[in-house]
Amino acid sequence: MKFSLLPKEYLFFDLFDQMAERATGAARCFKDFSIAGTFDHAAIEKMHHMEESCDEVTHEIIDRLNRTFITPFDREDIYSLAHEFDSVVDLIQAITNRMLLYKLDNAKNDDLIRFAELIERSVEHLASAVRGLRDLKQSAKISASCIEVNRLENLGDNLRDEVLSKLFDNASDPMHVIKWKDIYMEAETVLDKCEDVANIAASILIKQG
Amino acid sequence: MKFSLLPKEYLFFDLFDQMAERATGAARCFKDFSIAGTFDHAAIEKMHHMEESCDEVTHEIIDRLNRTFITPFDREDIYSLAHEFDSVVDLIQAITNRMLLYKLDNAKNDDLIRFAELIERSVEHLASAVRGLRDLKQSAKISASCIEVNRLENLGDNLRDEVLSKLFDNASDPMHVIKWKDIYMEAETVLDKCEDVANIAASILIKQG
Amino acid sequence: MKFSLLPKEYLFFDLFDQMAERATGAARCFKDFSIAGTFDHAAIEKMHHMEESCDEVTHEIIDRLNRTFITPFDREDIYSLAHEFDSVVDLIQAITNRMLLYKLDNAKNDDLIRFAELIERSVEHLASAVRGLRDLKQSAKISASCIEVNRLENLGDNLRDEVLSKLFDNASDPMHVIKWKDIYMEAETVLDKCEDVANIAASILIKQG
Repeated sequence: MKFSLLPKEYLFFDLFDQMAERATGAARCFKDFSIAGTFDHAAIEKMHHMEESCDEVTHEIIDRLNRTFITPFDREDIYSLAHEFDSVVDLIQAITNRMLLYKLDNAKNDDLIRFAELIERSVEHLASAVRGLRDLKQSAKISASCIEVNRLENLGDNLRDEVLSKLFDNASDPMHVIKWKDIYMEAETVLDKCEDVANIAASILIKQG
Repeated sequence: MKFSLLPKEYLFFDLFDQMAERATGAARCFKDFSIAGTFDHAAIEKMHHMEESCDEVTHEIIDRLNRTFITPFDREDIYSLAHEFDSVVDLIQAITNRMLLYKLDNAKNDDLIRFAELIERSVEHLASAVRGLRDLKQSAKISASCIEVNRLENLGDNLRDEVLSKLFDNASDPMHVIKWKDIYMEAETVLDKCEDVANIAASILIKQG
Repeated sequence: MKFSLLPKEYLFFDLFDQMAERATGAARCFKDFSIAGTFDHAAIEKMHHMEESCDEVTHEIIDRLNRTFITPFDREDIYSLAHEFDSVVDLIQAITNRMLLYKLDNAKNDDLIRFAELIERSVEHLASAVRGLRDLKQSAKISASCIEVNRLENLGDNLRDEVLSKLFDNASDPMHVIKWKDIYMEAETVLDKCEDVANIAASILIKQG
């Protein structure tokens, strides 16, 4: 488990820290939109910028992978971790867009807020796990974060089932059902993707362990 | 292809045997529910216990991975195999839940039975492939099981197309269509996931081959 | 990055060339169907043959993997690349089938044509990337193709959002919405899968780099 950390290797950890921070920002922003019930063009624009700033970090990581010989973990794990973490933010942005294009842009919805809160917590734990990779001696802490992301994904499954049940019970307008079913399913998919990232982090631990 | 099997390595095979047995049990149970047309709270409860018992084996495998130095295959393959096999059962449980929450809990449906039969056969072949990994000299047999899982997935695609076609042809109530389309698609996804597991098993063979 | 190319290794590249050609053929065919607005039994039959011919190459690649000791890249990357590239064609075929079974077989739809054009371009770039793997000195060119596939996937996301928005705005018949939403989402999924293949190609470059 011991390996020397060359200065260049620190760079990857710095970039992952940036990724963690920006992804957390996007998740927080999505929760704020949900609480305000506002998914207008200004919200879309703001989320778009956040997503682009995550893309930049991802490209920086991949670019550096191509130019660096020694990496702190397997090259392909760094690649997957960056790529999948970025996908989490892509998915959050996609829901934000979907809310506007379904003209649900003024729909304050308590169930969406509950999803947004789960997503925020999950991304925060991911961020913590990814930051922790800098110091693998803290593997217990990283593992705990990964387990928590998995737990939140289970909560997300339950929440999705609960809200779908309610949606279908109260349904009179099929278009309403189609739209909200889509939004809830996508929201749950964000939590699935978070779990994928946590699993990559966990498998890095296993390989190094 | 030769490697000595230390006692500790046997443990992984024992755990995979347990996984195979429990997953097969869940698939059989789902078929029974489908044939009886009963997806009530008792059924949900029973499936929940089966899913939890698969989770336990998965955690045991991952836990052991973290504490074992020598593993019969690449650590990450053991991890993926356990994780994805467990996902098959998660998906079977998810459909079971969905049937209840869509209030289709008393809907005996011949097309669902056909899916349930495909799923049972696919999981049985997966179980056989996973059990076979204990003795890689039997690689032809493992390959045959993996090919069969792939074939069943193709049958599942055809079945999904057939039942969707029927569903849309006879549709008058959009809510009915939304619900059953969802169930059928999920049922086909179980077969996709079985194929993923078979592909992991096949790739272990390729690496060792 | 240097390695000697034994005659047997050339075979893999020849097979990937065949895969590239056949997949491109399938994508072109799907565009032609979309432009003609014809998804009848003859079209289904033709696409089925194209999909089968891709399957044959995939099986040939996997078969050869099992019988070849020295491979130009990691065995599992060759496996994934073949498998996922084949999935692109599976998905194109699936949409073709879906058009018929939804009885949209005489529906000329400009938005579907736009998707079909994106898919054709994406598969062409994939084909170019995969062909390029024969000569890794051209890694800049391969990278450019992969980046283009990623760009086309983003265009696909935007297109999906645009057409969904239009679909829901003009919707009066929920069945119409359910069907076309499904078709558009599937079309976008083809572009996602193309991106997956491009990412595998890119990760081969990274590993060899």
